[in-house]
Amino acid sequence: MMNSYTDIFLDQIDPLLQRSLQAFLDFRSRPLADRAKLLRAIAAELEDMGDHWLAVANKETHLPEARLKNERARTIFQLESYALACEQGDWMRISIDTALPERNPPRPDLRKMMIPLGPVIVFGASNFPYAYSTAGGDTASAIAAGCSVIVKAHPAHPETSALAAAAIERAVDRTGMPKYIFQHLYGASFEVGKNLVQHPLSAAVGFTGSFKGGKQLFDWANQREKPIPVFAEMGSVNPIFLLPGILQSDALELASKVAASVTLGVGQFCTNPGILVAVQSESLDSFRAHLTDLMEQVPSAPMLHEGIQHAYQSHAAAHRDQPGVSTCVRANELAEGLASPQLTVVDADRFMSNAQLQQEVFGPATLLVVCKDKEQLLAVAQTIEGQLTCSVFGIKEDFIEFQTLLQFLPLRCGRLNYNMVPTGVEVLQSMHHGGPFPATTDARFTAVGSDAILRFVRPVSYQNCPEEWLPTELQSANPLNILRKVNGEWTRIG
Amino acid sequence: MMNSYTDIFLDQIDPLLQRSLQAFLDFRSRPLADRAKLLRAIAAELEDMGDHWLAVANKETHLPEARLKNERARTIFQLESYALACEQGDWMRISIDTALPERNPPRPDLRKMMIPLGPVIVFGASNFPYAYSTAGGDTASAIAAGCSVIVKAHPAHPETSALAAAAIERAVDRTGMPKYIFQHLYGASFEVGKNLVQHPLSAAVGFTGSFKGGKQLFDWANQREKPIPVFAEMGSVNPIFLLPGILQSDALELASKVAASVTLGVGQFCTNPGILVAVQSESLDSFRAHLTDLMEQVPSAPMLHEGIQHAYQSHAAAHRDQPGVSTCVRANELAEGLASPQLTVVDADRFMSNAQLQQEVFGPATLLVVCKDKEQLLAVAQTIEGQLTCSVFGIKEDFIEFQTLLQFLPLRCGRLNYNMVPTGVEVLQSMHHGGPFPATTDARFTAVGSDAILRFVRPVSYQNCPEEWLPTELQSANPLNILRKVNGEWTRIG
Repeated sequence: MMNSYTDIFLDQIDPLLQRSLQAFLDFRSRPLADRAKLLRAIAAELEDMGDHWLAVANKETHLPEARLKNERARTIFQLESYALACEQGDWMRISIDTALPERNPPRPDLRKMMIPLGPVIVFGASNFPYAYSTAGGDTASAIAAGCSVIVKAHPAHPETSALAAAAIERAVDRTGMPKYIFQHLYGASFEVGKNLVQHPLSAAVGFTGSFKGGKQLFDWANQREKPIPVFAEMGSVNPIFLLPGILQSDALELASKVAASVTLGVGQFCTNPGILVAVQSESLDSFRAHLTDLMEQVPSAPMLHEGIQHAYQSHAAAHRDQPGVSTCVRANELAEGLASPQLTVVDADRFMSNAQLQQEVFGPATLLVVCKDKEQLLAVAQTIEGQLTCSVFGIKEDFIEFQTLLQFLPLRCGRLNYNMVPTGVEVLQSMHHGGPFPATTDARFTAVGSDAILRFVRPVSYQNCPEEWLPTELQSANPLNILRKVNGEWTRIG
Repeated sequence: MMNSYTDIFLDQIDPLLQRSLQAFLDFRSRPLADRAKLLRAIAAELEDMGDHWLAVANKETHLPEARLKNERARTIFQLESYALACEQGDWMRISIDTALPERNPPRPDLRKMMIPLGPVIVFGASNFPYAYSTAGGDTASAIAAGCSVIVKAHPAHPETSALAAAAIERAVDRTGMPKYIFQHLYGASFEVGKNLVQHPLSAAVGFTGSFKGGKQLFDWANQREKPIPVFAEMGSVNPIFLLPGILQSDALELASKVAASVTLGVGQFCTNPGILVAVQSESLDSFRAHLTDLMEQVPSAPMLHEGIQHAYQSHAAAHRDQPGVSTCVRANELAEGLASPQLTVVDADRFMSNAQLQQEVFGPATLLVVCKDKEQLLAVAQTIEGQLTCSVFGIKEDFIEFQTLLQFLPLRCGRLNYNMVPTGVEVLQSMHHGGPFPATTDARFTAVGSDAILRFVRPVSYQNCPEEWLPTELQSANPLNILRKVNGEWTRIG
């Protein structure tokens, strides 16, 4: 066990992966119900830590208690919803086509299900110390998939992570699961990440963080002799398109929603709206004036750590200094890790010719892009990079007028919001939290909701397998009561 | 249109992709039923070509008429089954969670479905001039997904491909689909492939062929500024494990099945069994003698083209020349593109220490690996690379004795066969035709069966979208009668 917060030695990585593989082989041979049991036990252990875990996370991340309470509830809910997913089993996408011995040539019995990939490497996120760190969504969905997990804790909140790791270890022990199904380590160095991702026994990687970090993991994984999948959630500026009708009818209300979304959690969300796009008009001027007022009133607040604060100040300054950018609200240079909001404005021509303006400024900053007309707004939409989310605000007439935009935006994002800000990610099956590169390295998979399990599995077909050797999930009597596609029809009947 | 068989000029690639994108944008805005209509029209046009298409393919590929008739039937069946998949829509994996306005905070309406990726580049295969070429499975599944398609014809059967392309173009025209939804080109050069895969508008790649070719496409795609998915089906040696009990009870019958599978279609199948693994015994000696007799009796036959024949002869010779390999049946050096079978034998120690013996010999050749005992057979299984298929032949007692092997093999392959040879790939939902690297570049996706559509789509969530702006597939009334998961329950009810 590595329970100090010092970096792992590189020569410890091979034994770590060897143990992880052995635990995986044991775990995957156990009933699906065991995964649910383990996930529920982890949820209970986290709950049992009570206020102590909150106090430690508050000290390490400066996130307020109310936010941490919410995030803890979400983390526990995630674990429980993956447990439920294991009990239901739909995500295994079982398909059975029974033999047709009379056909010429005879058709064999074929049954398909999902199997786990193997040891999964998880890199914890800084901005979700609970929900996307040691006991977060990546760990929970990898366990639901039947994988073993190795978490590299985020160096910004080591003690919060250590408490979560100890809770998971207690749950593993209490439920009698293989000890090394979960392992936890510390390592801020480049070499630790590289050695984990490139170890021959690693089977997949989950990551939430910067574009630079995620892309590096992706490249390492693809340069392996045997490439492995990397699910990296990276930067996103989550553009909001503000259409003319709603600006005219409701500029103040709109400004208030946008200001709240931009500054929520000191802007430290992957779905933070960093770009606003609208056609010039008097209503837009009025919206901009309201937004300026509202953002100026937002008090400065501490960011997660000083590294993030420094990056925010330098990226916010870099945006302000681009040609043609004017500043309505300026991010102050504050001490003690504090940050204040920023609102900048640029015209669409400048925006479209300067890729740097699409770079994420991680923090409470947003850039208003002012278009001459509808056509230019459509042109801006086409230059936007892949995003986790896009949002449109409009009234009925706007949606009729801007149909082309509504048709186009799904091609650029993983979630399209109507008259809602992008912050606030529901943990639901219908949630897709992912998006085209560079928002993530694999737009086909979500990091939120039960489908996140699909990142860590792959299908296998069993052909002509005697009933007694079939995995339980595929047996004709359907002992696990899973909804399966049998000879083309969905049924729970065996 | 490029209807000569000369290579496309590199400066024609950009306009080709631009047209493909425009056609895609048009096609994706049309009803799902239009995809089915187009696919059925293509099937009808192929059927209408009658014997002429057979004669041309026979001349270009040397495949006998009976095989070509079967392959044509399969190609038409594939198109029709993707049409049916579009009519049913299950593969869209629609999930709907309706709003809970009373919740605090209110839960928004969220609906998720699959959308097409964009222009897909398909590289035709040499060994399936119909089923995995111009009008083959990749083209059909990409159209079902709603993508536009650009096919680079395989240079070994240009006229067969040209006829298929013309049939598709007639079907596009007859059904009123956007003209450039399908484009066909020729290009044997390295640069053509690279320019197609690295063009910024290309969205995904389908390929069937050699490891070298597939890996090159994969690397090009990942070196792009925006990486795209590559579905390359590459080499596989499809090991068959022959267990002691069945060898003892049925050595001749077993030898006859294996000989037929190894030499089927002059061994030119991706599921051809190139490795046989068994524990030494008198029964194995007897099996080997039978197999030698049977393979010696198989007449030489023409391979697809001279390039494949030359590769076969040199790879077969390279296998024979490895240390410790003895030759039971030797591939003759024949003229006129002909090939004859080869059977070689090696002991497990030599096999495990020589990775070259795992290289695919594309053609009617197989290598028998003789193990000292059960433990050594398990060790051989662990050294086997990722495969499309693994197969085990055994009686009940064998399966009890070799449980560890049965548990392990799914981790190495996409399909596990019991008492069946790997050749013969059923086109069914339950078929997984894919496997861990290096069998394919993405083990999570199949190239056969309706799930192959999933290669060319990704999920998008619509949040709080007014009913009238929802895609038809997601509308509350469920006008397309798709089975959807609504608030956690599978239903066709709106």
